[in-house]
Amino acid sequence: MLEPISPQRVIADLNALRALTEDERGAQRVAWGPVWRKTREWFTAKVKTELGLEVARDGAANAWATLKGESARGIVLGSHLDSVPGGGWLDGCLGVLAGLEVLRRYAAAGKPPPVTLHLVDWADEEGARFGRSLTGSAASAGALDPHGELAHLTDRAGVKLPDALAENGVTLDGMNTARAWFDALGAEAYLELHIEQGPVLQAAKKQVGVVLGTMGVERYSLKFIGQAAHSGAAPLHLRQDAFLAAAEFALGAQAVAVKLSGKTPRTRVVATCGVVKVEPNFVTAVPGRTEISIDLRALDARVLAKMLAGAKKVSQAAAKHHRVKVEWSQLQRITPRIFDPTLTRFVTEAVKEATGSAFELPSGPLHDAAEMAAVVPTAMVFAESSPGVSHTRIEDTPVRSLEKSIRAFSSLVDKTVAHLAAGRQLGASRRRAA
Amino acid sequence: MLEPISPQRVIADLNALRALTEDERGAQRVAWGPVWRKTREWFTAKVKTELGLEVARDGAANAWATLKGESARGIVLGSHLDSVPGGGWLDGCLGVLAGLEVLRRYAAAGKPPPVTLHLVDWADEEGARFGRSLTGSAASAGALDPHGELAHLTDRAGVKLPDALAENGVTLDGMNTARAWFDALGAEAYLELHIEQGPVLQAAKKQVGVVLGTMGVERYSLKFIGQAAHSGAAPLHLRQDAFLAAAEFALGAQAVAVKLSGKTPRTRVVATCGVVKVEPNFVTAVPGRTEISIDLRALDARVLAKMLAGAKKVSQAAAKHHRVKVEWSQLQRITPRIFDPTLTRFVTEAVKEATGSAFELPSGPLHDAAEMAAVVPTAMVFAESSPGVSHTRIEDTPVRSLEKSIRAFSSLVDKTVAHLAAGRQLGASRRRAA
Repeated sequence: MLEPISPQRVIADLNALRALTEDERGAQRVAWGPVWRKTREWFTAKVKTELGLEVARDGAANAWATLKGESARGIVLGSHLDSVPGGGWLDGCLGVLAGLEVLRRYAAAGKPPPVTLHLVDWADEEGARFGRSLTGSAASAGALDPHGELAHLTDRAGVKLPDALAENGVTLDGMNTARAWFDALGAEAYLELHIEQGPVLQAAKKQVGVVLGTMGVERYSLKFIGQAAHSGAAPLHLRQDAFLAAAEFALGAQAVAVKLSGKTPRTRVVATCGVVKVEPNFVTAVPGRTEISIDLRALDARVLAKMLAGAKKVSQAAAKHHRVKVEWSQLQRITPRIFDPTLTRFVTEAVKEATGSAFELPSGPLHDAAEMAAVVPTAMVFAESSPGVSHTRIEDTPVRSLEKSIRAFSSLVDKTVAHLAAGRQLGASRRRAA
Repeated sequence: MLEPISPQRVIADLNALRALTEDERGAQRVAWGPVWRKTREWFTAKVKTELGLEVARDGAANAWATLKGESARGIVLGSHLDSVPGGGWLDGCLGVLAGLEVLRRYAAAGKPPPVTLHLVDWADEEGARFGRSLTGSAASAGALDPHGELAHLTDRAGVKLPDALAENGVTLDGMNTARAWFDALGAEAYLELHIEQGPVLQAAKKQVGVVLGTMGVERYSLKFIGQAAHSGAAPLHLRQDAFLAAAEFALGAQAVAVKLSGKTPRTRVVATCGVVKVEPNFVTAVPGRTEISIDLRALDARVLAKMLAGAKKVSQAAAKHHRVKVEWSQLQRITPRIFDPTLTRFVTEAVKEATGSAFELPSGPLHDAAEMAAVVPTAMVFAESSPGVSHTRIEDTPVRSLEKSIRAFSSLVDKTVAHLAAGRQLGASRRRAA
């Protein structure tokens, strides 16, 4: 007989980890560094003491604990213990420690669970030090080319990523083995609990949310190239002002996004100009060059493509209007990932049980679940963020919302276990395709 | 009997100075430095050799040569020999060396001119090293507070302005004596030839222009303050995007300027956003703060005031639209200076004689003439710039245009000499007011 889940125990673990790894600027569990290693020693000891299980590392340094079930059919629960520098106490840790509580609960039943439960702490989800996020989960999904993508990355101090890996007993070649490790598990589902990191649930007054998938991303850098001139000497009609073109582009791209955006969380899109650099950047100089970034996101790939086409059109019009040139260069493209329909139905039921309603939203930020969704049926639960920010010390979630999100996650696991234990399948076609 | 002016001799002098003070990046005659001192030694030797005159320095390091006339009534001719780092061969030097040629011409007549001619090389017109432009001419006009404005300025290497002055035998207290020196001259007119530094004459296919005055300037820094957020997590309708507000402000202020601008050079206004800085400046971050500068210029003070009021209104609307705050802080305010009507009539006649027409335009950039105009009847002649840029090694003017501008300037001096020699006055009310 299973005991009820104990959200309080998860929160106590989160607080213990906070005390162990936070300084006055926030959490410092940056992947590949000393505080992160201390975090994982704490986690390993905890798994050993409380569950009697060993934590094993695959070639990409993902940390795995396995609670064997009556069947080898398996479910992976997980998230990441690493943080950005000066991060919060919940981002990533909530999912790993809620997964740990689920394993404790099944282990306490005195007999093996019907199916096998794998708990994973993904390595370097944040990419905070070297700029490549989702490193561990991408390696497991076979979506990482370690030699091509990682070999030449360096941190701000000039340390090369391979050298930082070596300090942790990891090699680029070893990373290539993570996919085989993952495949050997034979996992049939991936489930993750995470904080929202945004203001959507809070604004909707919802404590827990059903995550529909992760948005696709189109990210570019644009250069508007005009002619620098003296602010007093150059008449308006003879100028080629690169900044005014960029400003017109930013507002135009925003208008494109607003027009394509639906009113529901599922159909909402976002467009962001986050980097802006003008040259020469003097009070008396008409900007001759302006670099501006655009980050477009949507859950629907067709809408995302339309948004990109609209932004390109707007940039051409703005450039023409201000007699400047514009050049686009791609920074990143990420495919939207819609989560498994059966598992998402389980999430909906579980969130409704825990909170009385099942508010649906996509995730704008990426998660390890986005990598997993490409290779295994995947679903996610969001706990509200309040304030609706993360990657900062003030990142938080009210205790009642945390508790309900943990209950919903536990119920999601139960439903998935029951589904597999009954001999049923999940998203078989997707699994084969991968 | 006066010989004709020799523009060729001026151009030969300009080329000699170029060879003496230019490197592969352009002219390096930055005020208070070694190349500038070398420039002035060359100038002093030239005045001594060719005119038999001494060059004297006032307390602000302005360099003066005086060709005594039959009357003590005087005219000041001048400009500046200092340059920005990597500057051009004409900016400032053209006016000083054309003035030198005018003195040579009068000196060659074998008898004193009817009135006294003063030639001045103003110190630190550019303000390139310490950021305060028009230093020497402002000191002479009594418009400089050396202790208040200069004592705490430092260059990029951390050198304090008073220490750089000391290397040149100048003190802040000494600068305060420049006004008395100037007043003691009893000068009744200030005349300056300068390159346009912009594309207006070139676009109008005019080789020489009549300068109506210097535009007034209103220069501010604005801070738009919103809320930084994750580009994926923050829905558009919950954002407080400081950059979009700044972009809307920049385009709105531009529209205000276009609306207030006339179609003639006299009534044209300009508005420039030259500095733009966003924070946090990450591709995945909605900008929480944006700093943007605005530099507004007009010849008509009422139009300038209207433009500033319009820009302020636009900034409030943009801030409200994007749910952010905006703060304005003043960087600089400069009163428009309309040049003396009688002298401007002489400029018109002289330019017409030299080129067949008299195209009028205001100066957007400031000049020493702007400081002089506050205390003595003043006028300016512009030589076209081609390309229409300056403060760069590629700054240039076609030889034929240079020649005509020097002829026009010489004729302007002749007309002013004749006016004073006939016992007539210039702008007496303005002189008394100062």
